[in-house]
This record gives sequence, C-alpha cells and structure tokens, in this order.
Amino acid sequence: MNFRLVLKLVGRVTQLVSCSMLFPLLISLIWEEDPRPFLYSIVILLLIGTGLYFIPTNSSFYLREGFFAVGLIWIFMGLAGALPFFFSGCFPSFLDCAFESFSGFSTTGVTVLTDIEALPQGILFWRSLTHWLGGMGVLVLATAVVPSMGIRSHYLTQAESPGPVASKLVPKQAQSSRILYRIYCALTAIEVVLLRLTGLPLYDCFIHAFSTAGTGGFSNRNGNVGAYNNPAAEMVIAIFLLLFSLNFAIHFLILTRRFRQAFSSDELRFFLCLIFLVTAYTVWTVQPVYNNVWDCLRHSFFMVCSVISTTGFTISNYSAWPQAIQVCMLLLMLIGGCAGSTTGGLKCSRVLLAFRSAHREISHILHPRAVKVVKLDGKVVGEGTLHSVLTYIACFFAIVFVSTLLIASDDFSFATCFSAALTCVSNAGPGLELAGPTGNYSAFSPFVKVFLSLCMVVGRLEIFPVLVILSPKTWRKI
Amino acid sequence: MNFRLVLKLVGRVTQLVSCSMLFPLLISLIWEEDPRPFLYSIVILLLIGTGLYFIPTNSSFYLREGFFAVGLIWIFMGLAGALPFFFSGCFPSFLDCAFESFSGFSTTGVTVLTDIEALPQGILFWRSLTHWLGGMGVLVLATAVVPSMGIRSHYLTQAESPGPVASKLVPKQAQSSRILYRIYCALTAIEVVLLRLTGLPLYDCFIHAFSTAGTGGFSNRNGNVGAYNNPAAEMVIAIFLLLFSLNFAIHFLILTRRFRQAFSSDELRFFLCLIFLVTAYTVWTVQPVYNNVWDCLRHSFFMVCSVISTTGFTISNYSAWPQAIQVCMLLLMLIGGCAGSTTGGLKCSRVLLAFRSAHREISHILHPRAVKVVKLDGKVVGEGTLHSVLTYIACFFAIVFVSTLLIASDDFSFATCFSAALTCVSNAGPGLELAGPTGNYSAFSPFVKVFLSLCMVVGRLEIFPVLVILSPKTWRKI
Repeated sequence: MNFRLVLKLVGRVTQLVSCSMLFPLLISLIWEEDPRPFLYSIVILLLIGTGLYFIPTNSSFYLREGFFAVGLIWIFMGLAGALPFFFSGCFPSFLDCAFESFSGFSTTGVTVLTDIEALPQGILFWRSLTHWLGGMGVLVLATAVVPSMGIRSHYLTQAESPGPVASKLVPKQAQSSRILYRIYCALTAIEVVLLRLTGLPLYDCFIHAFSTAGTGGFSNRNGNVGAYNNPAAEMVIAIFLLLFSLNFAIHFLILTRRFRQAFSSDELRFFLCLIFLVTAYTVWTVQPVYNNVWDCLRHSFFMVCSVISTTGFTISNYSAWPQAIQVCMLLLMLIGGCAGSTTGGLKCSRVLLAFRSAHREISHILHPRAVKVVKLDGKVVGEGTLHSVLTYIACFFAIVFVSTLLIASDDFSFATCFSAALTCVSNAGPGLELAGPTGNYSAFSPFVKVFLSLCMVVGRLEIFPVLVILSPKTWRKI
Repeated sequence: MNFRLVLKLVGRVTQLVSCSMLFPLLISLIWEEDPRPFLYSIVILLLIGTGLYFIPTNSSFYLREGFFAVGLIWIFMGLAGALPFFFSGCFPSFLDCAFESFSGFSTTGVTVLTDIEALPQGILFWRSLTHWLGGMGVLVLATAVVPSMGIRSHYLTQAESPGPVASKLVPKQAQSSRILYRIYCALTAIEVVLLRLTGLPLYDCFIHAFSTAGTGGFSNRNGNVGAYNNPAAEMVIAIFLLLFSLNFAIHFLILTRRFRQAFSSDELRFFLCLIFLVTAYTVWTVQPVYNNVWDCLRHSFFMVCSVISTTGFTISNYSAWPQAIQVCMLLLMLIGGCAGSTTGGLKCSRVLLAFRSAHREISHILHPRAVKVVKLDGKVVGEGTLHSVLTYIACFFAIVFVSTLLIASDDFSFATCFSAALTCVSNAGPGLELAGPTGNYSAFSPFVKVFLSLCMVVGRLEIFPVLVILSPKTWRKI
C-alpha cells in the first residue's frame, strides 16, 4: 500500500474543500455576518492540505490505493467540513459539528439542530454546499478540475461512484468526470432559475437546488420545503429529484441524442414503474386525510420522489400517515435511485439483479440442465458482478442490523433505532418516531452519533472502501 | 410437471397425518375428553388421502416435482392439521385454526389463543405434536416409514431439509431418513425422561419435549416454561434446544465415533461462539434487573438458547429488558441454528458463507489478480452454491420487508409489524410489542393471518418450494 501517495491525495482534496469554502465566505460577507469561521477554516485546511501535498512519493497506484484513499479522504473531509460549524459556535460540541458535516457530505440530511433558522446564512449555505459536493463526489470533482498527478484516476472514481459497475461516459476518466460535473452544474443552475420563477428568494433557491442535486435534504427553513406552501416550487423540486436520481449516463445519452439507447435501460423502467406504483398506492391510502384529489396527489408524489431519491425533503409530516405508508417509505429509501446517480440506498439495478438472480434459481429448479444467464439492458451480467451485487446486499443488511443493535444501546424504541440505522446507511434522512421528520438526532448519545457518522460514510461509499480501511490485511505490511 | 404423482404424494402424506392423529385421540380417551374432533378428522383425512393415493400415474419424478410436491403438501398439511382444532370448537374461526396449525407444523410457535390452559388435553397434545412432525419434516418421515412408490425420494427431502446443501448421511435416502428419525426419537425420549426426573408431570414432559425437538415453542401452560419455576427443567430444555439446533449429521458422526470430523465443523464453532458471546453480553446488560448472578445467568442462557434455536420458549418477559437485548434477540432469530437442524432463520452456515464472501470481495480489492475460493470445513464451496446462498439471503430480506408492508395494513406499530414478519419467516415465535412474548396474534386481521401463515411455510421450506408453486412457469403447460 502506497500510504504516502494516499496522504498526498488527502492533501489535494483538503485544498479543494478549503477552496470551496470561499463561496460561503462570500455569502457571509454579503449578509454582513462574522466571516471568521470560514477564514479560520480556510487557512487551517489550506495549511494542512499543502503540507500533505508536498509529501514526496512515487506514483504506484492500484485499486487498493484507490479504495483506501477514497475511504480515508471521506472521513478526513467530514472532519474538515465540521470546522466552520465549530468556529461559528452554533453547535454544542465538535462531535455535533462532525455529525452535521458527515450528514452533509454523505447527502444523508439528518440534523442535530432544533432551530435551523437561528443559524447564520453563511453556515446554512455551507451546510447545503456539502450536499452538492458530496452528491457527485469530491474525487470525481478532483479528477475533473485538478491535474492528474500521474495516477490512474479511474481507481478513485470507481471507489467513489455508486452502483454495481462504474461506467465511463468516454474513454478518458478526466474528461468523463468533466462531463459529469458539467451536466451536474447545468441541472443545478436550471433548477435555481425555475425555483426563482416560482417566487422563492434567490438564496433559498440555491440552498434547495444544492440539496436537490445531492439528494441530501438540508433546508434553511424549520418547516423544510413545506414552509413555503408553494405547490409550483414543490413540483420543480420533485421533478429535479427524479432527474438527479437517474443514472447520469442517461442524461449524457440524451444530450448526445442517443434517445433509443437512453430509454432502453432496464433500470430506468424499473425505477419509473416503482414511482408510479407507489404514488398510486400512496394516493389511494392517504386520500381520506386530504380534502381534494390534487392536494393528495401533490403530497403523495412529492413524498415518493423525496424518499426514493433518498433526499428526505418533507412538505407533510408523514408520521401522521397510516403505518403501511411509513413502511412503504422505508422500503423506498432502502431501494434508492439508479446506479450512477447522487442517491443512496441499494440502487434499483442491484435490486433488479437480485430479482433476476432469484428468478434464475427457480428456473434452475424447473429445468436443472438449462444454462441460464442473468441479463441487464440486453447484456449478459458476469457471474463475478452478480456475486458482488449479492454480497453487497447481504453486507448492507448485516450493517443495518448490527447498527440497529449498537444504536439500541441508547434504549430508544425499536422503530427509532432501526429506522435511524436504515436511513443513515442508505443516506436517506428522516426515519420513524424520534428519528422521524418531526424529530432530530440531538438526543442520541455521543457514541451513537460517532457510529451513525461512520454509517453515513459507509453508505455513501457503498461499504467496501470503509471495510478496506478497517481490514487488518491493509495494515499488515506497515 | 407430473401433477398426478404430486397429488398421489399429497394423498400419502394425508394418510400419514391422519394416522398421527391416533396419538392425541388416545390422549383424549385417557383424559376422558370428547374424542370426536379427532375421530372426524381421522376419517375425513383417511378418505381424502386414500382417494388421492389411488390416482393412476407414472413415476416420472424430478427436482421440480420434488419442490412442487413439498410446497403443496405443506400447505395441504397445514389445512389438514387445523381440522381437530376446528371440530373442538375452541377457536373462533377456521382461519384461526389454520393459523395455529401452520404455526405448529412450521415450528414457529405463535398463537392466536389467549388462555391456553382452557383447551382440552388432546388438542394441546396435537398442537405440540405438529411441532414434532414439522421439525424434522413429514416427507423425511414419509421416505423413512412408507414404501418408496418407486420415486427418487432425495428430490423430496432436498426440498424439505433446511440449509444450503442437503447432506445425506448414507448413500440410500430411505435409510438416511430412518437414521435421522431414530436420532430424533431417541433425543426426544431422553428429554422426556430427564424432564420427568426434574419433577414435571409426564404429560407436560411430552408436550415440552415435542416443542423442544421441533424448536417450536408451544407449551400447555399460559406462563410457558416459566410457569414451573423449575431451574433444573429449564436447563434440560436449554441444553436440548442446543442439541436440536445442531446439524443432525454431527449427531450421526458422534454416534459413529467420528469425533474429530464432528468437531471440525466451521458452522458448529461459529454457532457455539455466537451463543457464548451473546450470553455474556446479555448477562452483562441485564444483571441490574436480577438479584443474584445465578438467576441472571440462568435467564440469559435460557433466552439465548430459546431464541437462537428459533423456538420462542420464555421464562421471563424480555419486553421489560433493555432495547439493545431485544434487538439482539431479533438478530439471533434471524440467524437461527445450524443447517440440517430443526431450527428456522437464515442458518449459521449461510451467514458464515456470506461473511466469507464479503471477505473475499475485500481481498479482491487488495489483490485483484489473486484467485481466491470460499471454503467451509476445509472444502471449497462451489460458486453455484455460494450464489444460491447469497440469493437466498436477498430473497429472505425481500420477503421480510414486503411482509412488513402487508402486515402494516393493520396499522399496528412498526416494531409489531416488522418483528411479526421476521419471526414468522424465520419460524421463531415471539417478536416485539403486540407480537411479543406477552402478546398474541389474535388481534391481526384475517388477511394478515392468512399472509402470516403463508410466511411461516415459506420460512420453513426455505422459500423456493413456495416460489415454485407461485411461479407462472410451473403452471404454463397445463
């Protein structure tokens, strides 16, 4: 393991995080707030980053270095992102700052804050910006904007990008990353414009566009998106949540006019079917709660989009809805959006492959001699990939259950513990009861907060980068 | 698909179930109760069974017929076993009778009854006998005691026996089944004797020995095993629960003096480690509740044995224990005992293989070119088997979550719905809150009861036989 190069990469990303704090610094200057939390953070991170960057090293870089670096960078970045929160003095402890920062970068969107509107605007802007940076990934950003340092950068993006197989849009990784970020920026910009047209203040448009893009869920209002009571804005957000839940390769195919290829994706069809079915089911179940069909449809559609994209925006308190809908919402969080999107959860393609794998098992019982392969988008899925997908699902559940056990040490209800574990590992946001849309995570003990922070990173990086860091094998040769 | 032969097999098993009702008939005559519930049932089932048995057919019998027959037979058997309950008039509806019967045969041990002691002794005897019959499996019994009908009976036992690979003790299936039932009967008999020595009434010894053998959990006392307040009896039951949670191949190896082979099983070591660790953790957590260490140790050890064997016997109300222990108990239920035992859940060997599969994924990241195989007991596990195991785990969770969703239509708490789904699919018994050790299942709606009955069969037969019945492919050629 080339630890020196990994540290050099940590330094590079620290510099990048430091630079990205210039935006909230600007915001705090515009709103005439105290800029020192950002000034201090920028200086500290720039010093650390530059120090690490000048570590002499060779360029031996393989898959294991990629996974290890991504895991380490994300943990370090979570801590770095907590600095402005800490210097602002708005949080009771550094632990809470780190929790909020991990929740931001991992696009989970859970909070320890009870009164969000009391925070300075600069801090709220940084809070939402972490969603935006974390959504598409900082290493994708790093490979897009900084010179390559002579390493095989696809090992990095492979470890950071969600989904069973990392697809490159074009052969060159740096170019691929640049295309991804261009689409990402363009969609975010269009959303800001559309939200402004619906009448939201410009600042709020940015905050919510960042949260939508990263499918995170942070807002600058205590009432979340529901605070505006603006159906047009809600629909804009809902539609963009769906757009950001799609595989970015689909956006690329559409932009390059390869429509047939774009719409032939099995995952896309599965995702859209799921949304249609669950929205219909929700409308049917919650309609006694609402006065008219349009209100019911609006609330249902928004919630389904918010939950399947693992965002966690709320316009209604779904804890008051029937139990079946709440379980349904948990299931959607668990599934998540498409691979190669900014969403969390298992991802539709993995669920689809697991279904097809089960279908093959039954076929095997009915026709033991027939050789059957599992296909996705008309292409045969290799047994190795299928194996990884199934192992991933098993690991995912193992982590959710073990987390539930550890969270239960705080002695809250089962629904609270289980849904907190599930939403943190699937980067979704609100769960049930104490962890639900009306509650917050401040009541958990320090140990549980640290553990949940780790769960969020584990979920965002899809388990294995963090397991590589925790594996004794990695450290054996030091 | 050879439907005629499948029906002939259904007939054969119906005759067997009918014959097994002679025992509770005898009990009801001894206790001078009304024998008509059993007389009616025996006559009806004997007529149906004999009618089906005389269907003319050929002996074309493959794996698919095996799976289909096992699925169909278990559903039919659940309904047949409900007849004595129905004729006794102790249950509010036939649906409740069927629920109790499915719970019995699948060795789940959940009940819709509130006052168990009000039932006639014959009915209680039949209730526990269903555990005993379901534990080792009626088709294993059928291949052991009735002539072979010229079919390949290993296809039947393969579909009915729990675990990733069905192991035969000796080359001939009929002989293998006979050995299994001999060990099963011998262990049950020894337990009856030991329980009698601890001072339990003989009748109660039989009831609890049957429930222990099948790892079911039905008792004839409202207070379950706790009603006797007899530590010696509790320890006998706990030890036998562990014995029945082991792979019966281990008992066979010990009986044939192949000790080294018996104790080299990875699954056995994993199982014993798990029991030791969880018991230690439970003792440490619940010790403030108890006055002395011995009481604490006794309650903890009994509960761990009861839960990991997916039995559900209770001597203490664990709903009053800390939340962490309750989650821990759910996790143990989920894991279950060893493959080839009478327990439910995922089985230790599957969990172990999933762990090793994840370990291989990490090794693959660290050393992408190394070819690594997954081993169990020193032998290489085929990729096909590993694939089946992982698919099974994914299906298991999918079924648990979808079941939770359907059960939630009754609008009970999340903990109730989720734990009811989990305990029914893993054939464990009590869950949390309403479905917990002090609650019962009578409050659920008819739809949920039917669905939970199906879940219990799905769990007992390890999913695929029931999926084969539900698959449209199976029915296409009729």
